[in-house]
Amino acid sequence: MTPLNAQWRLAARPVGLPKPSDWEYVEEPAPEPADGQFRVELEYLSLDPAMRGWMNEGLSYVPPVGIGEVMRAGGIGRVTDSRHPDYADGERVSGMFGVQRYAVSDGRGVRIVDTALAPAPVHLGALGMTGLTAYFGLLDIGRPEPGQTVVVSGAAGAVGSVAGQIARIKGCRTVGIAGGPEKCAWLVDELGFDAAIDYKRGELRAELRRHASDGVDVYFDNVGGETLDEVLRQVARGARVIICGAISQYNATTPRGPVNYMQLLVQRASMTGFLVFDYADRYPEAIAQLGQWLRDGELRSREDIVRGGLVQFPEVFLRLFRGENTGKLILQLTDS
Amino acid sequence: MTPLNAQWRLAARPVGLPKPSDWEYVEEPAPEPADGQFRVELEYLSLDPAMRGWMNEGLSYVPPVGIGEVMRAGGIGRVTDSRHPDYADGERVSGMFGVQRYAVSDGRGVRIVDTALAPAPVHLGALGMTGLTAYFGLLDIGRPEPGQTVVVSGAAGAVGSVAGQIARIKGCRTVGIAGGPEKCAWLVDELGFDAAIDYKRGELRAELRRHASDGVDVYFDNVGGETLDEVLRQVARGARVIICGAISQYNATTPRGPVNYMQLLVQRASMTGFLVFDYADRYPEAIAQLGQWLRDGELRSREDIVRGGLVQFPEVFLRLFRGENTGKLILQLTDS
Repeated sequence: MTPLNAQWRLAARPVGLPKPSDWEYVEEPAPEPADGQFRVELEYLSLDPAMRGWMNEGLSYVPPVGIGEVMRAGGIGRVTDSRHPDYADGERVSGMFGVQRYAVSDGRGVRIVDTALAPAPVHLGALGMTGLTAYFGLLDIGRPEPGQTVVVSGAAGAVGSVAGQIARIKGCRTVGIAGGPEKCAWLVDELGFDAAIDYKRGELRAELRRHASDGVDVYFDNVGGETLDEVLRQVARGARVIICGAISQYNATTPRGPVNYMQLLVQRASMTGFLVFDYADRYPEAIAQLGQWLRDGELRSREDIVRGGLVQFPEVFLRLFRGENTGKLILQLTDS
Repeated sequence: MTPLNAQWRLAARPVGLPKPSDWEYVEEPAPEPADGQFRVELEYLSLDPAMRGWMNEGLSYVPPVGIGEVMRAGGIGRVTDSRHPDYADGERVSGMFGVQRYAVSDGRGVRIVDTALAPAPVHLGALGMTGLTAYFGLLDIGRPEPGQTVVVSGAAGAVGSVAGQIARIKGCRTVGIAGGPEKCAWLVDELGFDAAIDYKRGELRAELRRHASDGVDVYFDNVGGETLDEVLRQVARGARVIICGAISQYNATTPRGPVNYMQLLVQRASMTGFLVFDYADRYPEAIAQLGQWLRDGELRSREDIVRGGLVQFPEVFLRLFRGENTGKLILQLTDS
């Protein structure tokens, strides 16, 4: 019997924060898998700041989601109705299945989720694209050395919280920037950051000077905007600025660039962007290492799971931009 | 007999373009060299965009020129009244002697100028800090490969014109951005650039698309501002953006950052600053190579020599920011 699918489709290109009229909720029969395909019943949806960028027209690393198309998103679900030899019914899989209840896949870009290693949501967090992004961005682009000072913005977010912990594991002085005292306490008390700066207190410049008094050797930037400019003021000689994201700018109607970028010259520093997809052939190495750290208790994965069901997607998505999540924001689609 | 010195001192920190009241012209007896020192009678003054930055308070790679201090500048002159064993009277020397007629030096940071290799002004141009800046910035930071597309802004300026020629020598497709048809014609017809874009025509985006249709692999930026943003729109995968200068911003009262910096992420590109001083131990290698290219006729050094005398300095300095110079702007202080 064909189940009823539900989808969130992009109805309009948002200006600023996505509003309800930018989305369309559609219910229709789920597609049938053909030979070499399987159906996925989605259980967990990965909510990521980058999704906001996919809603825009223009220059990016993937084509924008088309108007009328199902919103793009990563997720984890169970295989059903498989007509694919490599995927058995009941198996947990992870992939870009979209913001919907059921997807059909031929297995491209799909990974089998080993829930013996960690619960399914962790495979969207520290063991998923989130953890991989932190891993390759920090280690490959940032190249931190023991004793150096690593600053992470969006430090209580999904990627930032993992990046900071990896910096700590690598013997760096690790300073997180996050919004609010609870997040900051979590970074220091639970994740072992050396210091956390609550940017909402409005003393970012002074606090950076205090906590990175010898300058910032590596900056893992998830937020852009004023924070990036303030850190640029205090980069050390030869610093590496890792451009991972710019959440403060994704909904800006007049985005700003880093006014202090000439500090790159003053300090002989670099600012480098990266995309985790380029490291696909090294995912196994990274997942093995991240899994080891998780098992050893050196790395913690925190998932902020919202049990709202698919219908809540547009509202839950906005939590990212209001800074309401701590750790990986996940929308749970099933009751269990 | 002690000669009469003349100096331009910084009288006030300029807001925007330096105006006459930001300078003070002082005449007084030249200082006497002590043991281990010599006097230099300046013949040529190097006028460089970077000097504008030295006039500001704030974050930089050198302390700002103090109010009341002689303006900092490079220059070439003749040794007189030497009490230093390594410098003979009459010898030509190059160093940071300041905007004045006579300087006293102990030889630190001073290089002897070999006028058998090239006339003295060339030692402020292609064989001076200018050429060294182009050489290390392009080759060490830009790492261009044969067949790649190299775009240079401020291409008819001192550093840009050398950087573009080195790119051509290295087998790159070389595109210059400059202001006005004469400069553009010079770049293509005389210096062998593959193309030149006159940004004053207001078609930078379309022209870049045309002349760098496969994307910009290396961008040597001397200007910042809108030009940097337009090039960022069109960087190729893995591009290297070399931050050498930002002349469009040096007099801006509200400087702008590169709004399109997230293209670094989209294209996995980097933006790196550098300072030529860090390469001091490799100057001999670079000067030997630049000298070889000059002798072979592969590289041309053009000096834009103004015979105005020291008194003209404040006005001639402004030519840099009006884009009035082609090649290296030099103020000649002597009649010969």
